[in-house]
Amino acid sequence: MSLSIRLLAALAPWRNAPAWRIALSGGLDSTVLLHLLASQVQRESLPALSALHISHGLQPVAEQWPAHCRQLCDALGVPLQVEQVRVPAGASIERAAREARYVAFEAALAPGEVLLLAQHRDDQAETLLFRLLRGAGVQGLTAMPVSRPLGKGRLLRPLLQCSRAELLAYAHQHQLTWVEDPSNVDSHFSRNYLRHQVMPTLLARWPQATQSIARAAQHLTEAAQLLDELAQQDLMAAQAPSALAWLELPSLSLPALAALGDARQRNALRYWLRAWTPMPDSDHWAGWESMRDAKNVAAPMWRLAAGEVHRADGRLWWLSGDWLKKPALPLGPPSANEWLQLPDNGAVRLNGELPDGALRISYRCGGESMNLPGRGHRDLKRLLNEHHLPVFLRGRVPLLWRDGELLAVANVPGLDGPADRGWQLSWRPPTNDQGLSW
Amino acid sequence: MSLSIRLLAALAPWRNAPAWRIALSGGLDSTVLLHLLASQVQRESLPALSALHISHGLQPVAEQWPAHCRQLCDALGVPLQVEQVRVPAGASIERAAREARYVAFEAALAPGEVLLLAQHRDDQAETLLFRLLRGAGVQGLTAMPVSRPLGKGRLLRPLLQCSRAELLAYAHQHQLTWVEDPSNVDSHFSRNYLRHQVMPTLLARWPQATQSIARAAQHLTEAAQLLDELAQQDLMAAQAPSALAWLELPSLSLPALAALGDARQRNALRYWLRAWTPMPDSDHWAGWESMRDAKNVAAPMWRLAAGEVHRADGRLWWLSGDWLKKPALPLGPPSANEWLQLPDNGAVRLNGELPDGALRISYRCGGESMNLPGRGHRDLKRLLNEHHLPVFLRGRVPLLWRDGELLAVANVPGLDGPADRGWQLSWRPPTNDQGLSW
Repeated sequence: MSLSIRLLAALAPWRNAPAWRIALSGGLDSTVLLHLLASQVQRESLPALSALHISHGLQPVAEQWPAHCRQLCDALGVPLQVEQVRVPAGASIERAAREARYVAFEAALAPGEVLLLAQHRDDQAETLLFRLLRGAGVQGLTAMPVSRPLGKGRLLRPLLQCSRAELLAYAHQHQLTWVEDPSNVDSHFSRNYLRHQVMPTLLARWPQATQSIARAAQHLTEAAQLLDELAQQDLMAAQAPSALAWLELPSLSLPALAALGDARQRNALRYWLRAWTPMPDSDHWAGWESMRDAKNVAAPMWRLAAGEVHRADGRLWWLSGDWLKKPALPLGPPSANEWLQLPDNGAVRLNGELPDGALRISYRCGGESMNLPGRGHRDLKRLLNEHHLPVFLRGRVPLLWRDGELLAVANVPGLDGPADRGWQLSWRPPTNDQGLSW
Repeated sequence: MSLSIRLLAALAPWRNAPAWRIALSGGLDSTVLLHLLASQVQRESLPALSALHISHGLQPVAEQWPAHCRQLCDALGVPLQVEQVRVPAGASIERAAREARYVAFEAALAPGEVLLLAQHRDDQAETLLFRLLRGAGVQGLTAMPVSRPLGKGRLLRPLLQCSRAELLAYAHQHQLTWVEDPSNVDSHFSRNYLRHQVMPTLLARWPQATQSIARAAQHLTEAAQLLDELAQQDLMAAQAPSALAWLELPSLSLPALAALGDARQRNALRYWLRAWTPMPDSDHWAGWESMRDAKNVAAPMWRLAAGEVHRADGRLWWLSGDWLKKPALPLGPPSANEWLQLPDNGAVRLNGELPDGALRISYRCGGESMNLPGRGHRDLKRLLNEHHLPVFLRGRVPLLWRDGELLAVANVPGLDGPADRGWQLSWRPPTNDQGLSW
């Protein structure tokens, strides 16, 4: 079957989209995709066709690319939008460039529009090999999806079943010109090496190597999805209610999780943590086991790239952002019925009638005690123990003082104000980072 | 750390085994393993050490190998057992040779004994690449296990964390001689190609390639185990009781299975079928979907390499062996209380008092009817429908005739003999193949 028939078959479910927008780098693959669709537009009634070129401005040579794309699109009568993006400096220019590109793609898509990427089967196979050479797990070895939501629209890769050789043959046949693809800056050499040194060696003995590896990527994608389903099941079983639901922190019941086998614990935790932090590599899982099994440790904790998992009172808690900072004392005194911002620690409010005297908010340092009606002076540490307050809360739960007298511990039932409920100390704890910024 | 320290650390849990037996091909890897352990025996108190050479006799050159192993073992003072195996001709000589080898290994192991194989990290990585190039799924990409039960003993691969380069360096340092490994006959060239053409190309750019690929194999092993757990869960949920339990056939409830997503159905079926038949490749799963979704089809069926899955009355049945043959009629008449063998169809017996007249057993051809007390003559087809007898049973359930009169249908309640229970026709259906012969 010709390339154009297979392309239109892959795009058939999206014939009613308001627009098809081609991500055009100016390289071989996207040039062929553009040419294929522009030729069809004359014969078939297709959605409005346009091209989108993202200019990263990372290399001087790339400055010619927008002009090249312009020329190409003009010749084919396809409207072109050029978007300039700024790639922030950082550890991985490639990742930053990719992220900037996808942000621009997303912004450019109107509701229901479809963005067409020109990745093909060889890209699929090379990606798997590339990740395999970095020791990836199942999640890392999955295939690029043919289709996924992107912003208000959808991203499609309609050439994933086609080979680079087919695209090249098409380009020669139609005397197309192209520039070298500006993406893949970091892995450019690695990918070129795979493409020009490794793959030909493999193909010489296994002519089906690309298809086989791409097929394995499909199998692994299916496997990764099933592992996610298993994780969802296991996490559901670990969603026991907590007396500390007001913390609004992600939290799991440890006994439910620990009842699973080790591999299954890792699978569930990997899924749970994926939204918030880069995943630990094989070696870091020892940290999980130490935390899980710790005995006689005040506050077992597992430090990860973007936050910490704390174990307290039979639960696991995910903490990041302000939770990881030691909070400074607030500048002012509390006032009635108004939130007082606490540096790196949310906000506190006195609901009801303000008690008399000079009030201030501070945090526990140790040695405090509190006078409880009918119980006399009690050690604060013991009181917090009685209430099963996790260690990570003890140094930051707001305390209300009048001179040397501890009047209240925010949010702790029975300690958060007088028995007559004339007033109450209420704390809005900090929130975690929103995750996925990594 | 030296090779010998790592080897002894890997073997530490098996220091109390009654014997360590080295699988000695005479190649580099097993020669090094033998030398390492023979040197340690003089320093450490180890289990009794011996070597086991399996001679396949597949190539003329291999005839020198037993003699080479003999020389090697004599020099090191290690007892050697040589086992000659016959490799049956067939599609894959390599698989047949491996199977024959493992049968011999198993037979040679006394209870608790440990068989040591010399496979190393490079083998691990090459195996994964090799299978990847054949488009394997997760199960096919898993790592060789470090340890697994084998017959009455256990198989160990204590060098899996070591590289071929280390073994080679050791061999040179100790001036060892070896022959080329006689295993891997079929894939010999493929593996040599991977080893000499592909891996050096990869290692030139990714010096950690072998470790990375071996690590990925570990991740995939863990993933495969989790997928098996998910399958076990899903199959458990599909174990609804059947009125036909007497068939003693593997069977599943279709609605329970069909309620799962497609990928999860495949995962569960893959696990269920693995013991009995080679797994279908990607293309063959269309057969599963056709069978599952078939409407207005008399007997939906999915044909696999070693048998068939039949859908009947909301259940799936695995059939193989005699079940796939059309049974011929038995030679003799039935006699009371004695099993009459039915060609390719189990056996039948008349329990109780033999009815008068000339009796014979035959199978349904169509058009039969049966006289039921109080109901008159009824169409046999309708009667079997009423009893929800699966189509695959209808042509082989034994019928008892006296001249032109149908007296009984074996095993079908109410049809298997007279109402007064003076006698009863009992059928022992055929059994499936035992599986795993492929």
